Amino acid sequence: MVLVTDARKPIGVFDSGVGGLTVVRALRARLPGEDIVYLGDTARVPYGSKSPRTVERYSLACQAFLLARDVKLVLIACNTASANALPALRGASPVPVIGAVDPGAESALAATRDGHIGVIGTLGTVRSGAYERALAARTDVRVSSLACPLFVPLAEEGWTEPDDEVARAVARRYLGELFALDPAIDTLVLGCTHYPLLRGVITATACELAGRAVAVVDSATAMAEAAARTLRRGPSALAQGERGQLACHATDISRLDEIAPRFLGEDVTSFELVDL
Amino acid sequence: MVLVTDARKPIGVFDSGVGGLTVVRALRARLPGEDIVYLGDTARVPYGSKSPRTVERYSLACQAFLLARDVKLVLIACNTASANALPALRGASPVPVIGAVDPGAESALAATRDGHIGVIGTLGTVRSGAYERALAARTDVRVSSLACPLFVPLAEEGWTEPDDEVARAVARRYLGELFALDPAIDTLVLGCTHYPLLRGVITATACELAGRAVAVVDSATAMAEAAARTLRRGPSALAQGERGQLACHATDISRLDEIAPRFLGEDVTSFELVDL
Repeated sequence: MVLVTDARKPIGVFDSGVGGLTVVRALRARLPGEDIVYLGDTARVPYGSKSPRTVERYSLACQAFLLARDVKLVLIACNTASANALPALRGASPVPVIGAVDPGAESALAATRDGHIGVIGTLGTVRSGAYERALAARTDVRVSSLACPLFVPLAEEGWTEPDDEVARAVARRYLGELFALDPAIDTLVLGCTHYPLLRGVITATACELAGRAVAVVDSATAMAEAAARTLRRGPSALAQGERGQLACHATDISRLDEIAPRFLGEDVTSFELVDL
Repeated sequence: MVLVTDARKPIGVFDSGVGGLTVVRALRARLPGEDIVYLGDTARVPYGSKSPRTVERYSLACQAFLLARDVKLVLIACNTASANALPALRGASPVPVIGAVDPGAESALAATRDGHIGVIGTLGTVRSGAYERALAARTDVRVSSLACPLFVPLAEEGWTEPDDEVARAVARRYLGELFALDPAIDTLVLGCTHYPLLRGVITATACELAGRAVAVVDSATAMAEAAARTLRRGPSALAQGERGQLACHATDISRLDEIAPRFLGEDVTSFELVDL
């Protein structure tokens, strides 16, 4: 429950790295007046290859940092953290906590024609089975999932053009494996905050493999919508007020100036280095 | 200085992850009777994309763990840690510390015909300029270096066959950039412990691009040789005594059983989970 007196407090967003800035981008589009505190745990990125216990421990430290900054709401932009640590994070927070998995699953259920959904994400997200649980709300749905570790460094290298030879080869390898699990997949969930940067090549490859249109969805927009619902906000009030402030923090600063704008879609004034 | 009374103590080896097991493999071939304590900082892997300050902090914690196990010698298997933290590690250790960069540079100088050396490694290793400094001992040498972030996840996915379409596309992209810096490169240093798993595809691609033979060297064998010199051991005494014990530790346990044997070349009995 977010109290009216909390209205002026910022929204907190954390991620294992910079990928969560895609969620900040959606949030600033949907709730432009809100102040946002962002934390990227870039010293310990990636979470995707780590065990649930370690992911939970690091995620709790990230959330504690945001709570100490008096946020009114926590968004877990990282799918791996959402998939493995949501109960622990909710248990440790006095304010509402929104994960990435339920909104992503919601988007997929809204998009699917025939109930054949593919989920791609990190090893930690796929192993957790979190999307399968979230999608089980509808019994007529078949879920196939696959971990795609190379998509993260591809996005960070900026090899993301739809005709990039390396990106195409990697996408063909992974999506070929996924469609072998279920050739009838009609909707694909980008279950990692890095993957929206590869949306073009992933969509083109999926449609090629399927021989028809495949809907490609991610969590960012749905998370921003969930945040608006939690804060009981109406439709976006863009240009009716001042643009909220964005304060970015990271546990390590290396290449952030180069990489962060790709995810955020605007310049990042600066990252403050913090030690968790 | 390693004292005679220390002979029975183990050798300590640490790495940011499991790649350092390639150094353990070389060490067990060169000094088969030695006990070895290995630590992979798998909770915080990779170091390659992190800042020098963070790499130094994590490396000191790894070394402290080994020193607490009473090792007589420390080997820094990780090139990024060697390139960014060697002075700090030596300053904090009462026993000799061997890094990966000097032995790798030594191997390159022994192999080069015309003094044109290429170095590939992580962003942290390349940015440090450590190989350039180590190779500057010879003034007739030209060094060109390039960070190749996708090689690590490629090796971990096991997409390492010389004819693997993805591995070839990634190698062509990176080595194409490297040979554009110096088309006369005759020797290539694999400046990251993961890269020896891709030796086949890297060698084939380098030779194709160069249109002639390119020598490909790594640090592992030279590090084992440096350890033998430091311990004042003669040529390998294989089969003259018992095989030393190997105790493996990691800060996170995820996929280790699957990945570790690829690097070590023998089965790993088990990893003990430790918290740094």
